Amino acid sequence: MFQNIGIFGKYSGNQCWKNIETLIEFLVSKSCTVYLDKPSCDKFPTHPQAPLLERDELRQKIDLAIMVGGDGTFLDVARSIADDDVPILGINLGRLGFLTDISPDNMIETMEEVLAGVYQEERRNLLKVSVYENDELVFEERAINDVVIHKTDSPRMIEFETFVDGRFLNSQRSDGMIMSTPTGSTAYALSAGGPILDPGLNAISLVSINPHTMSTRPYVIHGNSEIELRAHEYCDQTAQIICDGQITHEISPKHRTIVRRNPHDITLLHPKNHDHFELLRAKLHWGDKLS
Amino acid sequence: MFQNIGIFGKYSGNQCWKNIETLIEFLVSKSCTVYLDKPSCDKFPTHPQAPLLERDELRQKIDLAIMVGGDGTFLDVARSIADDDVPILGINLGRLGFLTDISPDNMIETMEEVLAGVYQEERRNLLKVSVYENDELVFEERAINDVVIHKTDSPRMIEFETFVDGRFLNSQRSDGMIMSTPTGSTAYALSAGGPILDPGLNAISLVSINPHTMSTRPYVIHGNSEIELRAHEYCDQTAQIICDGQITHEISPKHRTIVRRNPHDITLLHPKNHDHFELLRAKLHWGDKLS
Amino acid sequence: MFQNIGIFGKYSGNQCWKNIETLIEFLVSKSCTVYLDKPSCDKFPTHPQAPLLERDELRQKIDLAIMVGGDGTFLDVARSIADDDVPILGINLGRLGFLTDISPDNMIETMEEVLAGVYQEERRNLLKVSVYENDELVFEERAINDVVIHKTDSPRMIEFETFVDGRFLNSQRSDGMIMSTPTGSTAYALSAGGPILDPGLNAISLVSINPHTMSTRPYVIHGNSEIELRAHEYCDQTAQIICDGQITHEISPKHRTIVRRNPHDITLLHPKNHDHFELLRAKLHWGDKLS
Amino acid sequence: MFQNIGIFGKYSGNQCWKNIETLIEFLVSKSCTVYLDKPSCDKFPTHPQAPLLERDELRQKIDLAIMVGGDGTFLDVARSIADDDVPILGINLGRLGFLTDISPDNMIETMEEVLAGVYQEERRNLLKVSVYENDELVFEERAINDVVIHKTDSPRMIEFETFVDGRFLNSQRSDGMIMSTPTGSTAYALSAGGPILDPGLNAISLVSINPHTMSTRPYVIHGNSEIELRAHEYCDQTAQIICDGQITHEISPKHRTIVRRNPHDITLLHPKNHDHFELLRAKLHWGDKLS
Repeated sequence: MFQNIGIFGKYSGNQCWKNIETLIEFLVSKSCTVYLDKPSCDKFPTHPQAPLLERDELRQKIDLAIMVGGDGTFLDVARSIADDDVPILGINLGRLGFLTDISPDNMIETMEEVLAGVYQEERRNLLKVSVYENDELVFEERAINDVVIHKTDSPRMIEFETFVDGRFLNSQRSDGMIMSTPTGSTAYALSAGGPILDPGLNAISLVSINPHTMSTRPYVIHGNSEIELRAHEYCDQTAQIICDGQITHEISPKHRTIVRRNPHDITLLHPKNHDHFELLRAKLHWGDKLS
Repeated sequence: MFQNIGIFGKYSGNQCWKNIETLIEFLVSKSCTVYLDKPSCDKFPTHPQAPLLERDELRQKIDLAIMVGGDGTFLDVARSIADDDVPILGINLGRLGFLTDISPDNMIETMEEVLAGVYQEERRNLLKVSVYENDELVFEERAINDVVIHKTDSPRMIEFETFVDGRFLNSQRSDGMIMSTPTGSTAYALSAGGPILDPGLNAISLVSINPHTMSTRPYVIHGNSEIELRAHEYCDQTAQIICDGQITHEISPKHRTIVRRNPHDITLLHPKNHDHFELLRAKLHWGDKLS
Repeated sequence: MFQNIGIFGKYSGNQCWKNIETLIEFLVSKSCTVYLDKPSCDKFPTHPQAPLLERDELRQKIDLAIMVGGDGTFLDVARSIADDDVPILGINLGRLGFLTDISPDNMIETMEEVLAGVYQEERRNLLKVSVYENDELVFEERAINDVVIHKTDSPRMIEFETFVDGRFLNSQRSDGMIMSTPTGSTAYALSAGGPILDPGLNAISLVSINPHTMSTRPYVIHGNSEIELRAHEYCDQTAQIICDGQITHEISPKHRTIVRRNPHDITLLHPKNHDHFELLRAKLHWGDKLS
Repeated sequence: MFQNIGIFGKYSGNQCWKNIETLIEFLVSKSCTVYLDKPSCDKFPTHPQAPLLERDELRQKIDLAIMVGGDGTFLDVARSIADDDVPILGINLGRLGFLTDISPDNMIETMEEVLAGVYQEERRNLLKVSVYENDELVFEERAINDVVIHKTDSPRMIEFETFVDGRFLNSQRSDGMIMSTPTGSTAYALSAGGPILDPGLNAISLVSINPHTMSTRPYVIHGNSEIELRAHEYCDQTAQIICDGQITHEISPKHRTIVRRNPHDITLLHPKNHDHFELLRAKLHWGDKLS
C-alpha cells in the first residue's frame, strides 16, 4: 500500500535514534523505500538505507509521512506538508499526545497493520492566515492548531475589531484572541477557557485572552467562515500573529489579517482501535466509566 | 403571501392586549384571517375578527405564527408547533429577546414588510429527548434551547455516564449537564460557562453544571450526534430531565435517555435588516465598533 | 496528653471495623479511655474496651475526637461537636481527603506521635446560618464547608438579594449562591468556579451558581462579615438553604437568612510533617516541583 | 485641615485644564496652597497661583494629593508617592473609575466637604516586588493593582515555580501569573478569571494566565505572605515582571523575584456617601436592587 515513506524526527538523544533505526529496518524489511527529512533529522547518525533529503525533494517522493517526536514536532512538519495530501502518522517518544498517539512499544505492531491497510483515517481541517498591506499579501502561513492575535511584549492590552464573513462581530480590548481548529481546541484555546470541539466538527472557535469586557465568551462559528481582524488605529501598541505557537509575524493598524479554512485538510492515520474519547479521558483526567 | 395567521400571547396586563388588538386590526385590514391561540390567550378580552381556537385546531389552519410576549412564551409555543413547518415571528413586550426580536414600536412596519415578502428567514435546529424504560418510550419532548439532566432537590450531586453515537464519552459527578442547541447557547448554557454557538452551526454543546472533576470543559459535538445518558446505579438520588427550563420528567438508573436533533427545524422570520451580531453585542454589552 | 478519646466512624464493611479495632487496641495499650459514638458506629460489632455512648454523653467526656471515614463523615460529625473545643483528627479509608489526611497505613505511627504531643494544630473557621421569620429564629445550623442558597427542584432560577454588613451588595437571578469557608473552597465552591482560599485566611467567598448576569464573579469578603439573603417576593419558586451538602431547610420570601462566622472554630490535628500545599498538588493534579 | 495640596494630571486636551483651573481657583479661595506636579502637568498652560514643582520637591510639601485623570494616571502617581502617607483623592474625567470616583460635576461640592473634614478614609494595601541576582537587589518597584510575571513576546509559555512563605506551592507552565491586591482584583486579575476581593481584606490573589494544567485555579493567600518566583532553568524563554501594567523588568532563571506587601499603605479619600458596592454594581453591570 504505502511504498515511499518519509520519516521526520526531533533530535532528543540516543533513545530517539534507536527508535527511528528500528523503524527504518522494519520498513525496509517490508520492501518500503525510506527517506529521512534533512531539516529535522540532520543531528541524528545516518543510516545506509534511509538517505537524507531536503524537505522539498522529499515531499515529491513520499506517500506516507511518519513523525517521530511530540506534538510540537508534528505541528511544525505537518504545516509544511499540509498541501501535499500525504497521510501522516505520529509516534510519540514522551507522554502520548493528541496528535502523536502511537507509543514506541506498539510502533512495529501498528506499522505492520498500517502497511496491511488496517488503520483509521481521519481528516482534520487547518487554518490559513493571510496578512495584507494595501491589498498586497505580506505574510501567509498555515496552522494545524490555531492562529492567535496577541500583544507583543508590551504590558498593555491590544484593541482590535473582528469581522466574520464581512459582518462586524465586535471590537475588543484584550491580550489577544485565539482562532482555533477542532484540533487546536485541546491546546492553547483550552488553557484560555475555550470549549473542546469534536474533531469531526467543521468549526472555528474564537477565544479571547483576558478580555477587558467581562461578558466576552468563546464564540464558535462555522468552519467555512472568513474572519478578518483589524488592529485599532488608536492602538499605539503593535500586535503579532502567531501560528501554532511557533511562527510569529508582527502586524500594525495598516494591516488586514484574514483567517479562513485552508483549502487542503491533512489526513491522520490512527491504529485501528484508536478512540478519541479515550484519549480525551486519559489526557484530561476525566472520570472513567463507572463499573 | 401569508394568509392565515395565528397569534399566541402571554397575559401580562392591558398594554399587551392593546398591542395584540392593533396587530389584529392591521392584519385584518390586509385581508388576512386571524386566529387567537386559546391556551395562551384566554385571559385576554375577545376580538370579533379573531376567533379563539384550541391549539390543535389552530395548528391545522395557519401558515404564520406570531408570538407576542418574551422568550419564555416563544419557547413554550414553538415547542408545541415545532413539527408543523409554520414560520414563527416574535414580538417582544419587554426587553428585546434573542428569539423575540421585534419591538411593538416597529411591529406594524415590520408586518407590512413581512406580508410583502420582505424578511429574513432562518432555520434553527431543535432537540428531541426520549426516555426509555426497557425499550419502552416513557417520555418524549422537544426543546428549542436545551435538554438538561439535573439533580432534583437533593443537596447531593448526581452521577451519570454519557455516550455519543454509542461510544462512551465519560462519567461524571455534577449537578447536571446541559445539552444545548446553538439557539440555547445564549440561554442557560451561557450561565453555566458554555460557549456561544453561531446559529448557522449544526452542533450541540455539552456543558456540565458544577462538575466534580476540575478538568471538565464544555464539549461541542456534531448536531447529528445521538447522545445517551445513563444515571449510575450506585446513585441513590433521582435525577430529572428538563426541557427549555419548562418541562421536567424524573428519571432513575433504570431509564435510558436519548437526546438527538429533532427531525423538523423551526423557521424564524426576522425583519429584513436583522443582524444577529448586533443582537449579541446589545444583549451581552459587547464593545461597539471602534469609531 | 489526650486521655479520653471518642471514635466516630462510618459503616463501610469489614475492613473499616478492622481499622477501628486496631486503633482501639492501640489506644487502650497507651492507657487511654476509648468511647465509640453510637449514632455513627452502631452498625459495627462491639468491642469490650470501647463502650458505645450517645453523642451528647460522649461529647462531655472526650478530649480528642477521631473520625474514621471520608470527608463526608468528617463534616457530619464535626458540625455536631463544633462548639466543644475538642480537637479532631481524621483517618481516611478511601482516597486521601482534604479533612481526613491520615491513611490507615500510618495511623498507628501518627497516633503514637500525637499521644506524645508531636503534631500540628490548625484552626479552621466555620459558618453559622440562622433563618428568621418575623424576627423569630426558625432554623439554625453550622457548616464546615459551605452554606448554599439553592433553588429546589424547580427548573427555574431563583431571585434574591444579598446584603453584607447591612449594605446592599446586589440582587441576582441564578440557581443559587455558595458562601464558603476557606475549608469549603476546595469543595463545592471549587466546582462552581470559586477561588481556593488559604486555610489561614479569615474570609468567606460568595460564589454564584449559574448566574444570569454574565459579569457576576466570585466575591471574597472578610470572615467577620454578616451576610443577609432575602428571596424576592416576586419569585414564585421556593428556595432552600443547604449546609455542607448534607442539611437542607426550605425558605421563602418571608424569611431572612443570616450567615456569619460561627463563634467557635474547630481545631484539626495533623501529622507533624503535614503540608497543605502538598495535599493541594496531589488532589488537584498540580505540577510538581521542576527537577 | 488640608493646607498644602498637590495636583497631578494627565494632559488630555483643553477640557481637562479647565477642570484643573476651576479646582485651583476654588482651593486658593479656601486659602490652600496649591502646587502642580511638573512631570504630569507640564503640557498644560500655567497658573499664577499654582507653581509647577518637580515631584521630589512636591512630595515634601503636600498633605493632600489630587489626581485629575483616569485610573491609569492614578496608578502611575500613587506608586511614586506611596511611601509618603499623603492621602489621595481621584477626579475622573472619563467614565468613573474604581480609583478615581469623583466626577467633575460634583468636584467642587466634594472638595468643600473634604476641606471641612467630611469624607471617608480608606486604606489600601500595596505590593512591593524585589528582584535579586545572587542576593543583590537589581530591581524594586511598588504596585497598587498587581505584580505580574509574564512571558515576553515569545509565542511559548514560560515555566516557573512559586513558593509562599518559603514553602513550595507549585510549578506551572502558563503565559504568566498575576499577584493582585484587593484593589487590583477588579483590574487585570478580573480579566484573567480571578475573584473580586473586598478592599478591606488583607489578602493577595494568585491568578494564572492561560495555565497549561487544567485544574489550576485562582488561589487567595494572606496579605502578609511572601511570594517567591523562580523561572525554570530549562526555560529558554525570558520572562518579565510587570507592575500595574506600566513598569516592566526582564528576568531570567538566575533571578529570584520576591513579592510582598509594601510596608506603607496608601490612603484614599472618598466623598462621604461613597459606596463601594454601588461602584461595583455600576461598573460590572450587576443587577440592581429588586424593587
